[in-house]
Amino acid sequence: MAKQIRTIGVMTSGGDSPGMNAAIRAVARACSYYNVKCIGFYRGYQGMIENDYCEMNARSVRNIISAGGTILKSARSEEFKTAEGRKKAAENLKKAEVDAMILIGGDGTFKGGKIFSEEHDIPVIGVPGTIDNDIAGTNFTIGYDTALNTVVDAIDKIRDTASSHDRLFFIEVMGRDAGFIALNSGVGAGAEEILIPEEDLGLDRLLESLKRSKRSGKSSSIVVVCEGDKIGKNVYELADYVTENMPDYDVRVTVLGHMQRGGSPSCFDRTLASRLCVKAVELLLDGEQNVMVGLLNNKIVATDFDNGLKEDHSINKELLRISDILSV
Amino acid sequence: MAKQIRTIGVMTSGGDSPGMNAAIRAVARACSYYNVKCIGFYRGYQGMIENDYCEMNARSVRNIISAGGTILKSARSEEFKTAEGRKKAAENLKKAEVDAMILIGGDGTFKGGKIFSEEHDIPVIGVPGTIDNDIAGTNFTIGYDTALNTVVDAIDKIRDTASSHDRLFFIEVMGRDAGFIALNSGVGAGAEEILIPEEDLGLDRLLESLKRSKRSGKSSSIVVVCEGDKIGKNVYELADYVTENMPDYDVRVTVLGHMQRGGSPSCFDRTLASRLCVKAVELLLDGEQNVMVGLLNNKIVATDFDNGLKEDHSINKELLRISDILSV
Amino acid sequence: MAKQIRTIGVMTSGGDSPGMNAAIRAVARACSYYNVKCIGFYRGYQGMIENDYCEMNARSVRNIISAGGTILKSARSEEFKTAEGRKKAAENLKKAEVDAMILIGGDGTFKGGKIFSEEHDIPVIGVPGTIDNDIAGTNFTIGYDTALNTVVDAIDKIRDTASSHDRLFFIEVMGRDAGFIALNSGVGAGAEEILIPEEDLGLDRLLESLKRSKRSGKSSSIVVVCEGDKIGKNVYELADYVTENMPDYDVRVTVLGHMQRGGSPSCFDRTLASRLCVKAVELLLDGEQNVMVGLLNNKIVATDFDNGLKEDHSINKELLRISDILSV
Amino acid sequence: MAKQIRTIGVMTSGGDSPGMNAAIRAVARACSYYNVKCIGFYRGYQGMIENDYCEMNARSVRNIISAGGTILKSARSEEFKTAEGRKKAAENLKKAEVDAMILIGGDGTFKGGKIFSEEHDIPVIGVPGTIDNDIAGTNFTIGYDTALNTVVDAIDKIRDTASSHDRLFFIEVMGRDAGFIALNSGVGAGAEEILIPEEDLGLDRLLESLKRSKRSGKSSSIVVVCEGDKIGKNVYELADYVTENMPDYDVRVTVLGHMQRGGSPSCFDRTLASRLCVKAVELLLDGEQNVMVGLLNNKIVATDFDNGLKEDHSINKELLRISDILSV
Repeated sequence: MAKQIRTIGVMTSGGDSPGMNAAIRAVARACSYYNVKCIGFYRGYQGMIENDYCEMNARSVRNIISAGGTILKSARSEEFKTAEGRKKAAENLKKAEVDAMILIGGDGTFKGGKIFSEEHDIPVIGVPGTIDNDIAGTNFTIGYDTALNTVVDAIDKIRDTASSHDRLFFIEVMGRDAGFIALNSGVGAGAEEILIPEEDLGLDRLLESLKRSKRSGKSSSIVVVCEGDKIGKNVYELADYVTENMPDYDVRVTVLGHMQRGGSPSCFDRTLASRLCVKAVELLLDGEQNVMVGLLNNKIVATDFDNGLKEDHSINKELLRISDILSV
Repeated sequence: MAKQIRTIGVMTSGGDSPGMNAAIRAVARACSYYNVKCIGFYRGYQGMIENDYCEMNARSVRNIISAGGTILKSARSEEFKTAEGRKKAAENLKKAEVDAMILIGGDGTFKGGKIFSEEHDIPVIGVPGTIDNDIAGTNFTIGYDTALNTVVDAIDKIRDTASSHDRLFFIEVMGRDAGFIALNSGVGAGAEEILIPEEDLGLDRLLESLKRSKRSGKSSSIVVVCEGDKIGKNVYELADYVTENMPDYDVRVTVLGHMQRGGSPSCFDRTLASRLCVKAVELLLDGEQNVMVGLLNNKIVATDFDNGLKEDHSINKELLRISDILSV
Repeated sequence: MAKQIRTIGVMTSGGDSPGMNAAIRAVARACSYYNVKCIGFYRGYQGMIENDYCEMNARSVRNIISAGGTILKSARSEEFKTAEGRKKAAENLKKAEVDAMILIGGDGTFKGGKIFSEEHDIPVIGVPGTIDNDIAGTNFTIGYDTALNTVVDAIDKIRDTASSHDRLFFIEVMGRDAGFIALNSGVGAGAEEILIPEEDLGLDRLLESLKRSKRSGKSSSIVVVCEGDKIGKNVYELADYVTENMPDYDVRVTVLGHMQRGGSPSCFDRTLASRLCVKAVELLLDGEQNVMVGLLNNKIVATDFDNGLKEDHSINKELLRISDILSV
Repeated sequence: MAKQIRTIGVMTSGGDSPGMNAAIRAVARACSYYNVKCIGFYRGYQGMIENDYCEMNARSVRNIISAGGTILKSARSEEFKTAEGRKKAAENLKKAEVDAMILIGGDGTFKGGKIFSEEHDIPVIGVPGTIDNDIAGTNFTIGYDTALNTVVDAIDKIRDTASSHDRLFFIEVMGRDAGFIALNSGVGAGAEEILIPEEDLGLDRLLESLKRSKRSGKSSSIVVVCEGDKIGKNVYELADYVTENMPDYDVRVTVLGHMQRGGSPSCFDRTLASRLCVKAVELLLDGEQNVMVGLLNNKIVATDFDNGLKEDHSINKELLRISDILSV
């Protein structure tokens, strides 16, 4: 029989994403609602190792639902990758009488949580918080929608000046291993081309496409490039290559960078975070453990960590086709 | 055998919503891609009756993906509700050699389209464009996501001044028959109470809840009220009622109004519109007709009009529960 | 000789405005920089009367520069209008060893401060913080620029739907006694008409202008109405009047309300608040008192309270003329 | 005696800036109001040389007040720097019966316009449109305010993630020769350090300041770097240098780039553009010529080109001092 849960710990780990604060708030408030004590660990696993935490109640998360970043801070912990580090963390949880943990983060966070839980018999539940959307077990991760709006808003601005000056812009967006941001923001921003790691377009076809685009009457163009793109050149090299081969085009580069991780979360990310974290608390109280919560077909569901972790959250190739059709 | 489609007409009808331009662009571009002529009718059914249209090509929808409103304008047509009116529209389509229509709008638009199609044997496909999200056959309608962000952004601003002055605000949002906007924006904005037509909270419980909220240490509060709320009082009467019963609270009212219908569409609404409308064109070319396209479980699917129209797109009661838990 | 200043108090009073937090931060940081103790009183004069305050240092104003509202809260105090109330406040300041006060607020705040300072020989300096911009002695008040952007952003959204549906919108903006917001946002939003208290257009000329506008080919129109407009009808009555006299126009009303007071301050308001408050601290340390600081000809200058208070900050009539020319 | 003005030409030149469309609209509408014909040349001086223009009326500038970029496009013209090129332009103006030109752009645009006007006896008036704010004769150039808000909005987002991860960010903003954007956005965003070309801080003092900042309890920091900074290292080299010397700091770089040139203009830039361009038309009709219009002490005034051009629009050193005080 599952032991009774009297205290739940929560932390944020990995790259931060907009909506993590809404998630922390939902954990703290749901704990308060169910009369469970809530403890927040700082800087993810590192704070668990260093016993760096604060007690949280309904009031201590006041007005954070609209704030970007994470009040619990985030970090990547090398020490937690060692059995020694995880042992320290487990001992600290025991001292603080933490009965279960809610882990808000991405793929790496969940992998660490699974090992930790198995080694030390501490129930954990994962909540997908990352702008990359590269987690199976959920249609959307917390922060992804906001990041898309940030990117599209930036590209809209760049489009203004690109049109005024008849320029071609290469715009690099985040996504180390997955092209979700590039693909969706590219379609949303009406980009002429989208380069993602999952599909190698090839330099020849890129050139050909840009030339066709120019012939069709377009005087300016936007190419969205995923940072993890595997076309063999980085975004600056790409720009040089195109400049060489299309000397009449005035080519520029923008790397959007870390602004994609910040900003006030969208309504979608706030409600997603709220729903997922209330569910996470309720699952723990029901004796559930070692699952991640996700949004599938518009419903909040729990998925076994192994299914959540497997890398089958494949990119939606349909969108590449849509992009081709719409950039005629 | 379905006749060949050489010309597709498109229009926007009913209350406008952000993303309608992205939808029109996608129809025009997909037509161009498939070498089909595209004609845009102005002001929905009324333009069909008055034969008010323009030819559209890939270039004529340049740079509209980011624009709110609809370049084809929208209207409600009383005349189209008569057989006479629909006959005129059908004759105009015949004259302009329009083989099929794509109808971007809501429930009322689809109902009219169904009758029109049956009477005059013209294939139509419906694309759900409305901020209200009250259509079965799709998880999301075009414009809904943007409207939620507009509402949450406005409430965030009101929250600033409510907190500074320890006030209670009643904020009315759109939704004549459905509480989708109220419910989701209310959770997203961290509202203390949400009043929707689908669930009559009752005045006593509202008062009780506000008093409990005040006792728990909250000095300011936000109540989101759906315009179609059935609590028996409009938002001003509600404010008066609470002022009478909680004289120590400084109560204010904001009716957000039509700004909820405008603004540059979110990335979500742009990609949704793009995907739905490419699909709509492709379905027509494949001989499909009299369906609506929608997003179900993250996939674009066609639904029979009758299923799309039936009013079973019930509100997510889970969110009311979430709201209760999170406003502790 | 002026006594040495060891402790400076700060408060925000009257209607709150975006940038008040940036102002509080600048006071606290400047005090820290000059090794002066800083104390923040809550809810303006009321907190001084109730001895409700906190000590502030450089860290306690961390990350508030971007936040709307005021962390010190604001209020209007009836008690401070009495000699009794002001005496209580003065005694509390003495107990807390506060040597001088910085008052962030509008006209009413300054008037109270002047009396208080004279009665109790406590140096005060006023910082103009109000969205209304109705203070002589400064070209711009803190919060005014942000409010203008909020209004223009809202009207842009309403313009989208007004254009789509060929509608006429009456939009009421804040400004009880002064038409600054209406006039500048009206020009910025490209409104067809602007109604302000300082200039009574008259109903006949309004109708005439709207009819001329329609004849010239405009199918939709925006009329910005200042809440303090003296045309003799409120915004709803205006709408009814126009509907009666121009039955072919579909007329709607939006009252923007309190969202105009909130939101993250613009860069302009943040730098203005920063510059004004550093100057306010430095003036106190230099033995100056009973002045307000303001921005005149792009420089920070101190103005005698009496000059700052006098109501000669007259509206820029040039803008009305500009509006007439540009709405052809 | 000045000849009568029957046709006014307008163009935008140099780097584009938000509000140029509002300026074009104001020229076209003012021309319409005064019954003067208006002609818009594309791509600045290049369009005048290539005789690439369109006639404009009050309706052709409909709804562009809120749009970034410039519908007349912008360019830099090498050919116009030759007497030959300017002669072609003058002949084209004669053929099109253009009596005077309004030139919207920056310093380089005005210099070219002055020579052109003197050589060919064509009245010109300059309107300052550039995000850089580096023009004497006006307190503010069109587009500067919007660029500041774009930068501050981006830094706010980066601040979110910088705080979450305890990082130090170097953020490069535009300004080839002038530090206006860096200085004002840096103060507005609460940056810890601001590096501008007008003031060489020196690497040692930068390091010292960052170390002091860390000792004082700040775990994250923002350094705003003007692209034209003369510290002798570009922003990436700066980051490397600091990483070497402060190995415990996690240093990142963002180059904001061209998004600073785009976006919907702020209310301030829209009203500024409107006021300046109505004045420009009126001055031409009054026989005035070869001046620039500007905003000085909140009034629209004309300045002789030579005074407008001289490089004495020196940076506000007061702001550097403010920044030092506020980053304690």
